[in-house]
Amino acid sequence: MLIQEKPQQRNWKPIIKELEAVLGYKNVVQRREELITYECDGLASYRERPALVVLPRTTEQVAAAVKICNKYNIPFIARGSGTGLSGGALPVEECVLIVTSMMRQILNVDLDNQRVVVQPGVINSWVTQTVSGAGFYYAPDPSSQIICSIGGNVAENSGGVHCLKYGVTTNHVLGLKIVTATGDIVDLGGMLPEMPGYDLTGIFVGSEGTLGIATEVTLRILKAAESICVLLADFTNVEAAGASVADIISAGIIPGGMEIMDNLSINAVEDVVKTNCYPRDATAILLIEIDGLEVEVAHSKKLVAEICRSNGARNVTSASDPETRLKLWKGRKAAFAAAGHVSPDYYVQDGVIPRTQLPYVLKEIEELSQKSGYRIANVFHAGDGNLHPLILYNNSIPGELEKVEEVGGEILKLCVRVGGSISGEHGIGAEKRCYMPEMFSDCDLETMQFVRQVFNPKGLANPTKIFPTPRTCGEAARVMGDGAKKFETSGVERY
Amino acid sequence: MLIQEKPQQRNWKPIIKELEAVLGYKNVVQRREELITYECDGLASYRERPALVVLPRTTEQVAAAVKICNKYNIPFIARGSGTGLSGGALPVEECVLIVTSMMRQILNVDLDNQRVVVQPGVINSWVTQTVSGAGFYYAPDPSSQIICSIGGNVAENSGGVHCLKYGVTTNHVLGLKIVTATGDIVDLGGMLPEMPGYDLTGIFVGSEGTLGIATEVTLRILKAAESICVLLADFTNVEAAGASVADIISAGIIPGGMEIMDNLSINAVEDVVKTNCYPRDATAILLIEIDGLEVEVAHSKKLVAEICRSNGARNVTSASDPETRLKLWKGRKAAFAAAGHVSPDYYVQDGVIPRTQLPYVLKEIEELSQKSGYRIANVFHAGDGNLHPLILYNNSIPGELEKVEEVGGEILKLCVRVGGSISGEHGIGAEKRCYMPEMFSDCDLETMQFVRQVFNPKGLANPTKIFPTPRTCGEAARVMGDGAKKFETSGVERY
Repeated sequence: MLIQEKPQQRNWKPIIKELEAVLGYKNVVQRREELITYECDGLASYRERPALVVLPRTTEQVAAAVKICNKYNIPFIARGSGTGLSGGALPVEECVLIVTSMMRQILNVDLDNQRVVVQPGVINSWVTQTVSGAGFYYAPDPSSQIICSIGGNVAENSGGVHCLKYGVTTNHVLGLKIVTATGDIVDLGGMLPEMPGYDLTGIFVGSEGTLGIATEVTLRILKAAESICVLLADFTNVEAAGASVADIISAGIIPGGMEIMDNLSINAVEDVVKTNCYPRDATAILLIEIDGLEVEVAHSKKLVAEICRSNGARNVTSASDPETRLKLWKGRKAAFAAAGHVSPDYYVQDGVIPRTQLPYVLKEIEELSQKSGYRIANVFHAGDGNLHPLILYNNSIPGELEKVEEVGGEILKLCVRVGGSISGEHGIGAEKRCYMPEMFSDCDLETMQFVRQVFNPKGLANPTKIFPTPRTCGEAARVMGDGAKKFETSGVERY
Repeated sequence: MLIQEKPQQRNWKPIIKELEAVLGYKNVVQRREELITYECDGLASYRERPALVVLPRTTEQVAAAVKICNKYNIPFIARGSGTGLSGGALPVEECVLIVTSMMRQILNVDLDNQRVVVQPGVINSWVTQTVSGAGFYYAPDPSSQIICSIGGNVAENSGGVHCLKYGVTTNHVLGLKIVTATGDIVDLGGMLPEMPGYDLTGIFVGSEGTLGIATEVTLRILKAAESICVLLADFTNVEAAGASVADIISAGIIPGGMEIMDNLSINAVEDVVKTNCYPRDATAILLIEIDGLEVEVAHSKKLVAEICRSNGARNVTSASDPETRLKLWKGRKAAFAAAGHVSPDYYVQDGVIPRTQLPYVLKEIEELSQKSGYRIANVFHAGDGNLHPLILYNNSIPGELEKVEEVGGEILKLCVRVGGSISGEHGIGAEKRCYMPEMFSDCDLETMQFVRQVFNPKGLANPTKIFPTPRTCGEAARVMGDGAKKFETSGVERY
């Protein structure tokens, strides 16, 4: 029911006319060369050209565009900045792409009640920029925060390095105005953290565009901490770094962020970003950010350093001044991009494991690397067990991508086997839907499909995403993104 | 579609036989005098006797009972300890009550990953008792925590005094095993804070038994703070207490709890609980709990005391030893019960307002009190704007309850008018469904109803709750709980 029939040679003329009447001539993109930009998102290894791209500016324009798609039974896909890594915004054949990048207004700032209302195209980092003068910030901070949009963050329930202490996007979205897949405008949640009735805001956040399009987002902002300190601990084995993470949490300290990078990542970053802070001979480094009151940070900093040393850290340094802190984080935030410089291509995986399984899983990933012959760089949100192994390969060699995807799949299965998850913060999108049955029973998936049909009865909103249709990964690879072609040439630009 | 037809004189014999075959003879309660206990929950002003009560012990028994109800089209209602204050567990005519109080096993304790799996009948405070020896606790703490069940907490998304800093039940439920309204067993969420796919755990928590029955709950537990301090600030006007709340939050301090009690509540508590800590001549007291590292608590304590004094507090005292802390909280936790001692009856309201509206709303409530002639005691979670006005009245005077409910309704409308909500933590249940249209549009409510139908297609699970059918409050009062009778005699036992 949710799979679109192969469209017949469609007559787009009347559709374009109707869309232009609502959106204006300039905001309906149809020229082949202009459409190329929209062929893929951050999962650049799959591409499909949309039939049209529309650029709405208001909720009403989004609703009108969706209604036109419904009238003609055209699948449509929402896209923010296109930085997603699981192909959530990958077009399907003959679809309309609804791009929210012109919806960039900050609609309301209410500092007293700590909330900001934004349009979905607003860039993540703009929210903090808007309120930082008054001492506030917006907590979720994906590495792509200077370019990714709040609408995309809502779709993918994005995380970031500070999500250990402060939670992911869903913990910071109070309310939404959405356009459902049938073009209705509905308000979900509100201005308060808890509302009566069913938590429809919660179900929408992370639904990857399959339930409709968010057109206004009410965000919770937080008071900036009085003091922040970043520690860098340098280890000669990854297990010791993992043990330090467990010990820090056990001591009752929840750092703002706690990240591990392995030797391969460290050197990639130092080659490219040149922080000159990361010791190139370390097997692993642990970056720990502590925030809070000055007295609290001073106390925790001492304790954290002791814990790292007692676990065998060779050296522990710390920085409280904004400039050095930024430099320490810059390397971590640029780790994906750096991997792209030391290898023709990389495939980033996103899995979650219970914190206690860290040493075992890292050992298994190392074995997978040796068995498959691919170098795997590990960069991860250690505090919440969210792994980001980067598999380095060369996409210009035919067949390599398939092999690498297979290794990535093995890592995901490993995560599920130890009680974890196939996605931490990048979403399922087009990429991982074939792994959903690893985590969910038929009955679980069927229940989700029923919910999908409530908002998206004709299946027009972002079809072929999240749910495992077709069921096997082999099949999925052949028809990824409902016919999207694999893109086998190296040098693809990624964020 | 969701409203049950008036049942014909049903032949219960074959149904009882089938239920006994699954649950055992002892666990199917049918004697009239034994059923009386189950006529109401904490909203004792409405009563309806169920046809049968069943006491399952396992998920499979719950599923079997639900399947039998489906076979015979019998409405069924889940009940935990029956302490809910909005009539969520109020029976409807000729229903089966599925009581989870025999499902009291703690199934798994995983301290390393900070999670505990329990059956729904487990009492809230048992969770903390189970893990406190190892230095952990379960954060949501309704005032009824020594008697209310985790299953009921999940149904109503319960809060408590510590929810300002730590969030309500939904923030602490990682996963659920549920029996849907059709008797299917489905797993929602898992052992990790974030899972891919739709957040069905989030939608189930707070759904007040209308989507099914939780039979296993995976809870997140937290590390107990190193140090805790409770401050009591004594004010000669409520506005000054409210201003202190705003200033404390603005200073970047998030207390574990922050509660205001007014003069009427203070004296009721001192009459009954005799803490000898609360100044009887204060217009309002502000109770502030600060938790964290020792250094942090020491620093924040000083700052909080200064803020209160600068807002005109006559006196600020503090206690760090467990005994005095407990005594300070005991009065607050017993405030509802105390109101029941100084007045024949009381009606507790539960609304939320943006923190900045506190002074205005308190003034309006005072005016409502004078206009209506009912004394209103105010006890509330000031930090998160969650009000609990207690309207004192005498239920043995015919017509009083209706008048008091009207005053309560005015308070709710006032909350909505200033951008708040008609329920903070007690749920909508049978009591407040007629106020849902004050907050939600027809389209919003219809969307919720569609979701309800996914899990509860025949409308058998807890019918007549949450949704405004019939639409006006007058009608609702006449057929509250699908025919439940008003209970007009005083001295009803409440928790």
